[in-house]
Amino acid sequence: MHANDDESIRRHPQYLDDFKAGDRISSGSFEVTAELIRSFAELYDPQPMHIDEEAAHQTIFGELVGSGWQTLAITMRLLVDAKLLGGNPIIGAEFANLRFHRPMRPGDSLKAIAEVLQTRPSRSRNDRGFMDLQVTTTNQHDETVLTQAWTLIVPTRTAVHD
Amino acid sequence: MHANDDESIRRHPQYLDDFKAGDRISSGSFEVTAELIRSFAELYDPQPMHIDEEAAHQTIFGELVGSGWQTLAITMRLLVDAKLLGGNPIIGAEFANLRFHRPMRPGDSLKAIAEVLQTRPSRSRNDRGFMDLQVTTTNQHDETVLTQAWTLIVPTRTAVHD
Repeated sequence: MHANDDESIRRHPQYLDDFKAGDRISSGSFEVTAELIRSFAELYDPQPMHIDEEAAHQTIFGELVGSGWQTLAITMRLLVDAKLLGGNPIIGAEFANLRFHRPMRPGDSLKAIAEVLQTRPSRSRNDRGFMDLQVTTTNQHDETVLTQAWTLIVPTRTAVHD
Repeated sequence: MHANDDESIRRHPQYLDDFKAGDRISSGSFEVTAELIRSFAELYDPQPMHIDEEAAHQTIFGELVGSGWQTLAITMRLLVDAKLLGGNPIIGAEFANLRFHRPMRPGDSLKAIAEVLQTRPSRSRNDRGFMDLQVTTTNQHDETVLTQAWTLIVPTRTAVHD
């Protein structure tokens, strides 16, 4: 292995072999506006608490809050930009245990952290395997907004060397 | 109970008491365009297979496909429009077992079905309870695109009569 390869792996691990339990990938931040909340909700989740400030006051939230599905989508954007798999496509086998701990509000700034729980080779193919990640999305007060468990399909180095 | 109430419940069940295992709520349909796929992906999932027809040919998908997170968002829209809880807000306690069975493509027409698995009263509060649903999203060929398990927080009739 060349020094350059080593450096490249440290910057952007991308194959199953590059990851181990405990590794953490941290994202940048994403600023949430009322306009962004409304434009998503009008198309995908047109409920009063997501589209209308006045109507939102009558709900249990008491104010305009973002759709949970938009929080999910923003988390994906944060991890794509963080090059979670070093630019390899992020392809999920399963997503589990999604919990929305608190709503996303206008003015929030979200970040995501993905922590590697384990990597597992595929039983049937040596060019890929599975990686289990715990993904946590937080706001600017370091409060947890969303947690979820991802199982991704990740190529091994065998895939490129074969 | 008035005949009118009975009719209203049959049309749009909305309280925990109105649902039982085996009930199914079916949505209308949602037409997916290449433009819609790209506009979502540019903001939330800017990977080559979702934003660029040419680049998508080089991926394992071989063509432009929608982000899985957009499939999720469209499923929410379908079930909001279907008045899943009769207009009561759809608030999730947990979402689990999300599996993307096949990609969503331009020209697809998606539908969703939510099937009630069980209802459970809350142990601590008599004005609400939990409803477990299996949610299935299909395309115009009746192929399964997405399956997931929802646990929603649903008010009981006690909540309105207290």
